[in-house]
Amino acid sequence: MALPDTEHLLLRRDGGVLHITLNRPAARNAMSLTMVSELQRSFDAVADDPTLRAVVLRGAGGHFCAGGDIKDMATARAQAAAGDADAYLRFNRQFGAMLEQANALPAVLICVLEGAVLGGGFGLACIADVALAADDARFGLPETSLGILPAQIAPFVVQRVGLTQARRLALTGARFDGRKAAHWGLVHEVATAAELDTLLTETLDALRHCAPAANRATKALLLKTLVQPLDQVLDQAAADFAAAVTGDEGAEGTLAFIQKRAPRWAEEI
Amino acid sequence: MALPDTEHLLLRRDGGVLHITLNRPAARNAMSLTMVSELQRSFDAVADDPTLRAVVLRGAGGHFCAGGDIKDMATARAQAAAGDADAYLRFNRQFGAMLEQANALPAVLICVLEGAVLGGGFGLACIADVALAADDARFGLPETSLGILPAQIAPFVVQRVGLTQARRLALTGARFDGRKAAHWGLVHEVATAAELDTLLTETLDALRHCAPAANRATKALLLKTLVQPLDQVLDQAAADFAAAVTGDEGAEGTLAFIQKRAPRWAEEI
Amino acid sequence: MALPDTEHLLLRRDGGVLHITLNRPAARNAMSLTMVSELQRSFDAVADDPTLRAVVLRGAGGHFCAGGDIKDMATARAQAAAGDADAYLRFNRQFGAMLEQANALPAVLICVLEGAVLGGGFGLACIADVALAADDARFGLPETSLGILPAQIAPFVVQRVGLTQARRLALTGARFDGRKAAHWGLVHEVATAAELDTLLTETLDALRHCAPAANRATKALLLKTLVQPLDQVLDQAAADFAAAVTGDEGAEGTLAFIQKRAPRWAEEI
Repeated sequence: MALPDTEHLLLRRDGGVLHITLNRPAARNAMSLTMVSELQRSFDAVADDPTLRAVVLRGAGGHFCAGGDIKDMATARAQAAAGDADAYLRFNRQFGAMLEQANALPAVLICVLEGAVLGGGFGLACIADVALAADDARFGLPETSLGILPAQIAPFVVQRVGLTQARRLALTGARFDGRKAAHWGLVHEVATAAELDTLLTETLDALRHCAPAANRATKALLLKTLVQPLDQVLDQAAADFAAAVTGDEGAEGTLAFIQKRAPRWAEEI
Repeated sequence: MALPDTEHLLLRRDGGVLHITLNRPAARNAMSLTMVSELQRSFDAVADDPTLRAVVLRGAGGHFCAGGDIKDMATARAQAAAGDADAYLRFNRQFGAMLEQANALPAVLICVLEGAVLGGGFGLACIADVALAADDARFGLPETSLGILPAQIAPFVVQRVGLTQARRLALTGARFDGRKAAHWGLVHEVATAAELDTLLTETLDALRHCAPAANRATKALLLKTLVQPLDQVLDQAAADFAAAVTGDEGAEGTLAFIQKRAPRWAEEI
Repeated sequence: MALPDTEHLLLRRDGGVLHITLNRPAARNAMSLTMVSELQRSFDAVADDPTLRAVVLRGAGGHFCAGGDIKDMATARAQAAAGDADAYLRFNRQFGAMLEQANALPAVLICVLEGAVLGGGFGLACIADVALAADDARFGLPETSLGILPAQIAPFVVQRVGLTQARRLALTGARFDGRKAAHWGLVHEVATAAELDTLLTETLDALRHCAPAANRATKALLLKTLVQPLDQVLDQAAADFAAAVTGDEGAEGTLAFIQKRAPRWAEEI
């Protein structure tokens, strides 16, 4: 895989894991259009490379992501003023397209959430397969307090925590810490900032034992359950199961189980 | 806004907040047909008046609502006996129409839940944007123990707490207190009865900082995520975002943020 | 009702309750094709007999169910090797058909979960109306660690605990105990193994007070809310309500309530 050149992201590959760091620490990693485009290209690269089994997404400088970038808003305003009526709409929709892509990423997406997890950063947290948070991370949906909407992230917030919490959080501009985020089901695990890396290592260790192609097929199947009729999903699932069990991973998994040894994919990450 | 004349409700406007009190304390505020019709007319009035930003719904005399009204059932029975085969069906469906309207109310709906929160009252709790409960409030779905169904409220219970809890609660006639209601995600906050008003004040303070039109658009968007395909919701969201950011609230919100002052809507509730 | 003859299940009727015990203790009640077929026939019999109000499903020998049966896999492999390309697919899909039937069982399904609750056993836990777990029960989705998929159970896991937990659990091969299962909303109640039977008795006592036909109609309605538009569900609910209130149970329930006595169905279970 050729990793894209990036300006607002740091990319580092370590075996089967791609580490993506949002890297605008002076702006608490606010989500610029450049960053959105670079994430999209990074996710394209991940999708093209089945040897990448996991993506770890975090922020530089103690914050995950403080939301949208005010300077990009100014650019969109200038474009709109110059007669490009759809400048804001395109700007916003592209962020949503990136979230859709991240949500359906074939690799397992792990988000490590520290400091500010606001607005668009909150949206990214909502599509993580595994979300690990610092207990003092600061989550929030400040949009309507700024006169705007949590627009592209709305459906992902509802999918993440359900309508009951989503309506309360979005309509009251709620701010809360990592412990509450775990309590409300937004993140999976919470730890002190000092222990976050240990949590991440444990998560990667667990992933090591899961077969890569089986995980990809499972993730696609789980997402399908939200949009397809049950019977159709179950028919597809049976076909996927038959393909897996008769494929390389199924053969290796069965053999390793009988031989009481770790399967080969446990060595590879 | 002209508030409707009401017999089973108390209505009181305080700035941008409409306080609705279910007012049949002798019947623990059982939901009469008159009450249903008066709620519908009240919600019509709310929908017509964008200066109303929040509705606070509670019950008089220490109870929220003990469910359907037995006397109205007798009336429907008499109508059915007189050959009006659809009397019960109309009676039940109108309550559901009121719930649909309450669920989609443009203003933020806050329910303050004390004492009995049963049957139809339980249904109302399920559509609150913010649900505040007394720790000793008594929640329950007694319907099937009476040989009838939690009919109109069924879909709202599933949306509220998910199928897993809904099937258990509805099929076992479960009774539980406010603490359990918070634990199972039916309500957002729980406090002693004495502290409920403080919780309500805090909620209204939080709402004060959220722009009214942005909140209305956000609520509509959140509800759409349950019934429209994701791409369609995201396209709509981008259009809503562009409208908000170029509108009055977006301009004021940005300006207030830059000037480090509260936006004007924070003074108005 | 004639109970089917069974080899891998123990069936015992006690009044309105059918006790089904998965009975392959030497294999920790692994789900054989024979067991799947026998469950299907048992559920057929339950559906045909409205006097059966509850089904209690548990495992013999201290385990609920450790997942799929390896020997049946070998049979399917032999069939596939002999040119029957769909052997695995049929094998897997039939298990899903059984889950669909169990999920929609007219009687209330109570699962008592001890020891191993893995793979297919995990799937069964996901469709219980009431799930009672031992605090030291061992839940898990080991499929992808074996190179295969949690295929037929995927949609039921998502319905049970939501996408947020489902994606984490399935993609990390998570193992967890009964307390965590309760915390994440997979089961309703948790107790020490010694107290599980008390929990079960309490659940059956609660069920005793719920009218059988009203419970059946309510369960069907709750499941419909996931697949039908809201208005359609509410129209159906009103028709169901009218039928219940004018039916035998509605009359008896109202009379018992007025006479301050238990309804007749409370004596019958």
